[in-house]
Amino acid sequence: MKVLYGKQDEIIAGMETLREEAKQFEKEATHVVERIVTDVKARGDEALRFYTETFDKVTLESFRIPAVQLEEALASVEVSFIEALEGAKRNIVSYHEKQKRYGFLEAEQDGIIRGQLIRPLDTVGVYVPGGTAAYPSSVLMNVLPAKIAGVKRIVMVTPPHPSGVNPYILAAAKIAGVDEIYSIGGAQAVAALAYGTESIPRVDKIVGPGNLYVALAKRAVFGDVNIDMIAGPSDILVIADETGDARYIAADLLSQAEHDVNSAAILVTTDQTLAEAVQREVKIQLQQLPRKEIAQASVARNGAIIVVDSLEEAFETANRIAPEHLELHVKEPMMALSQVKHAGSIFLGPYAPEPLGDYYAGPNHVLPTSGTARFFSALSVDDFIKKSSILSYTREALYKVRDHITILAEKEGLHAHAKSINIRFEEEK
Amino acid sequence: MKVLYGKQDEIIAGMETLREEAKQFEKEATHVVERIVTDVKARGDEALRFYTETFDKVTLESFRIPAVQLEEALASVEVSFIEALEGAKRNIVSYHEKQKRYGFLEAEQDGIIRGQLIRPLDTVGVYVPGGTAAYPSSVLMNVLPAKIAGVKRIVMVTPPHPSGVNPYILAAAKIAGVDEIYSIGGAQAVAALAYGTESIPRVDKIVGPGNLYVALAKRAVFGDVNIDMIAGPSDILVIADETGDARYIAADLLSQAEHDVNSAAILVTTDQTLAEAVQREVKIQLQQLPRKEIAQASVARNGAIIVVDSLEEAFETANRIAPEHLELHVKEPMMALSQVKHAGSIFLGPYAPEPLGDYYAGPNHVLPTSGTARFFSALSVDDFIKKSSILSYTREALYKVRDHITILAEKEGLHAHAKSINIRFEEEK
Repeated sequence: MKVLYGKQDEIIAGMETLREEAKQFEKEATHVVERIVTDVKARGDEALRFYTETFDKVTLESFRIPAVQLEEALASVEVSFIEALEGAKRNIVSYHEKQKRYGFLEAEQDGIIRGQLIRPLDTVGVYVPGGTAAYPSSVLMNVLPAKIAGVKRIVMVTPPHPSGVNPYILAAAKIAGVDEIYSIGGAQAVAALAYGTESIPRVDKIVGPGNLYVALAKRAVFGDVNIDMIAGPSDILVIADETGDARYIAADLLSQAEHDVNSAAILVTTDQTLAEAVQREVKIQLQQLPRKEIAQASVARNGAIIVVDSLEEAFETANRIAPEHLELHVKEPMMALSQVKHAGSIFLGPYAPEPLGDYYAGPNHVLPTSGTARFFSALSVDDFIKKSSILSYTREALYKVRDHITILAEKEGLHAHAKSINIRFEEEK
Repeated sequence: MKVLYGKQDEIIAGMETLREEAKQFEKEATHVVERIVTDVKARGDEALRFYTETFDKVTLESFRIPAVQLEEALASVEVSFIEALEGAKRNIVSYHEKQKRYGFLEAEQDGIIRGQLIRPLDTVGVYVPGGTAAYPSSVLMNVLPAKIAGVKRIVMVTPPHPSGVNPYILAAAKIAGVDEIYSIGGAQAVAALAYGTESIPRVDKIVGPGNLYVALAKRAVFGDVNIDMIAGPSDILVIADETGDARYIAADLLSQAEHDVNSAAILVTTDQTLAEAVQREVKIQLQQLPRKEIAQASVARNGAIIVVDSLEEAFETANRIAPEHLELHVKEPMMALSQVKHAGSIFLGPYAPEPLGDYYAGPNHVLPTSGTARFFSALSVDDFIKKSSILSYTREALYKVRDHITILAEKEGLHAHAKSINIRFEEEK
C-alpha cells in the first residue's frame, strides 16, 4: 500500500479510470444479456431450462424449491449460526422499522381534500448469488426491508448447483420470511422475474447482488420492472487523526480489500506516523488472510494511504470520492458529521468497524458504490413502497380557481385541458 | 371511440403491443444518442456548440441566459398569467411540504447509537423542452420539490431558438427559483449535465420531460448521475357508474388525448347508456378542439370505452392497467379508494378533473406512465434527497456481539471481516 502526500487528484483520477475500464467490459456482455432476456420473454420456461442446462450444467424437473427443503436446511445448520442470524435479524428489523412511512390526508382549504397514499409493492424478486460466494447476510438485508414495507409476496431466485443449493442461504431465506424460492440464476432469472414464465411469477421490483450478467440484465429490464441500484465494486474510506489505531484501521481496510480485486480501500490521515504504521500493519495482516491473493491485488491496484495537512482537507477528499463506507477514527467523530457531505454509511469511532454494519448492527449493507453516494442511498423500506396522490374538489372550490387553470392551459396551447374545467360550469346546449 | 363489452384483455394486449413498438423505435435512436453523449463527455463545450449548430441551427456566444433576461421575461408576460402561476406555486409548495422528511437518531441499546441522515442533493439539473410545446407548469412541478428538499443549486437547460427562449418558460423559472439557465437542449444537454463541461456544471440528478433523444440520453447516463423516471406516453382511465356525467367524462378523456397521438384515454363503466353518451360527446367535443387532429388520432388508436358488469370488474381492469391518472366518477369515490391498487394520481368525483391536477391543485403532474404505477411514483421531495446511515458502538457493545459477527463472516468465507472485529479484543503481539 502506497503512502502518498496530498495526491488526491491522482487517486481520484485513477478510480475514475478503473470505472471507465469496467464499462468497456460491460459493452461486450450487453449483447449476450439482451439475447437471453428476449429469449426468456418469448419462450418462458423452455428458455429457462435451456440456459440452466447451458450455464449451470443442471437439468431441473421443477424450478421451485419445496418448503420441506427449507425446513431441512434450517435443521442442518449450526445452532450458533441460527442464533447469529436471529440476532442480526432483530437489529435489521428494529433499524428499518424507523424508516416506515405513512401517507397523509389534508383538508386545509374549503372544499378541497388532498392526500398521498403510501402502499407496499405487491411482489418483489430477490436475486441471491450461489456457489462459492454464498451470502446469507445479503438475504436478510434484501428481504427484511421488503417485509417491513408490507410486501406480500417475496420471491427468491438463486442459481442451481449439481450439489444442491447452499443450506445457509436456505436457512437465511426461511428466517427472513421469503415466500417462495426458485432454483434459477443469471440473466435468465432476472428476465423470468421481469416478464414472468409458466413457473416464475412476474414481480414489480428486482433487488439483490449478482455478477456482471445479472447486473446487465437488471439494467435491460429496468422500466418494465423496477430494480435496485446497479452495484459497482465496493469501497471503504477511513479518515484518521493521530488518535487512530493502526492495527484496527489496517484490519478494516483489508476487510474491504478481501471482497474483490476491484474493491478500493483508502486511508486519509493527518498523521504521517499513523500512515506508515498502517502501511506496515497491512503488510503483516495480509500474510494471515485466507483470501490473501485477492486482498493483495486489491490493495496494490486500488489501495492508498493519503497524508493530508488538515482534517478539513481529509473531509474534502472524502466528499470528492463519496465513499460507500466511511469510517471516522478521529477525536470527536459525532462532531465531525457535519463535514461529511456524501457517504453511504458512516461508522463513528474505533469500535464501529465496517463488518459490524455488514452483518449485524441494523443499517443496510446494500449501499451506493463508485461515488454514487452523491445521489443514491442505502437500500431501505422506501425501496419497497409506491405512492399515489389523492385529490378531491367540490364544485365551488373548482369554480374559484377555474380562470387560473384556463390561462395556464391556454398558454401551453392545450385547449382541451381548459375545456375540461370550463364544461363543468357551462349550461348544456 | 369504440364501445366494447368486456374486452379488457384485448385492450390491455393492444396497449402492450404499442409499448413494444415504441421500444423498437428506441433501439435505432440509441446509437445516435450514445455517440453524442461520448462526444460531449470528451470535447465539452466544443461538442455542445457543434450539436447546437447542427440540430438547433443556432450559434451561441455563451450558453448562459443572463439574469436580466429573466427579469425582462417576467415583466413582459400578462399579470393574469403570473397570478395563475403564483397560485399554482402556493398549492404545489403546500402539498409537497407535507412530503418533507427528517432522519432519525436512536440510542435504545446500551452503548449503541444508530441513525439515518437525510440531506438534499447538492445540484440538480432540470430539462425543459422548448419550441412550440413550452410547458411553464412543468417548470414548477420539477423545480419546486427540489427547492423544498433543500437543493442549493438548481440548473435549468432548455433548447435555444433563433427567436429566443419562450418568455413564459423564463417567467416560470424565475417564479420557481431556478438558480441558473443554459440555452442548450437535446441529448447534448443531458450529457453536459451528467459530466459537466467548461460552461455547464455537473449535477447529481437530471429531471424533466423531453423527446425520445432526451429520454434515451437520460437512460445512457443513468448511474453516472441519477435521473427521474423515463416517461412514456401519458394515459387516463376513468371509472364511472350511472352517476357519471357524459360531458365531463368526454372532456377529461379528450384533455388526455390532445397531448399526443400515443396518449391513451379509457373509460370503464358499468352503465351502457353512459358509455354511448360519452361516445357521442367525444365526437361532438372533438370538433371544437384546436388540436383536433392529434386528439382524434389518439382516440382512434388508444381510446376505448369498456362496459363491464360490476364496479369490482371495473377496478380489476384499472388495476391491471395501472393508470397514470385515474378518475373516479362513482357514487362514493373516497370509499372506493381501497379497491384501487395501482394508480399514479387518483381524482375523486366530478369536480376533480385531471387538468386541475396537471396545473394547479398541488400534487405533482410528473407521474408513472405505461403501467409503471405498479412500482414507480409521482415525482416528490423524496427524489431530491439522499440518506446516510450512522453507526457508533462502544468497546463493550461490540464485545458482546463479536461471536455472532465472527460466525456470520466465517460462513461467508470472509475471514478479514471476522479479523476486523476480533483484532480489537486481541493483545498487540
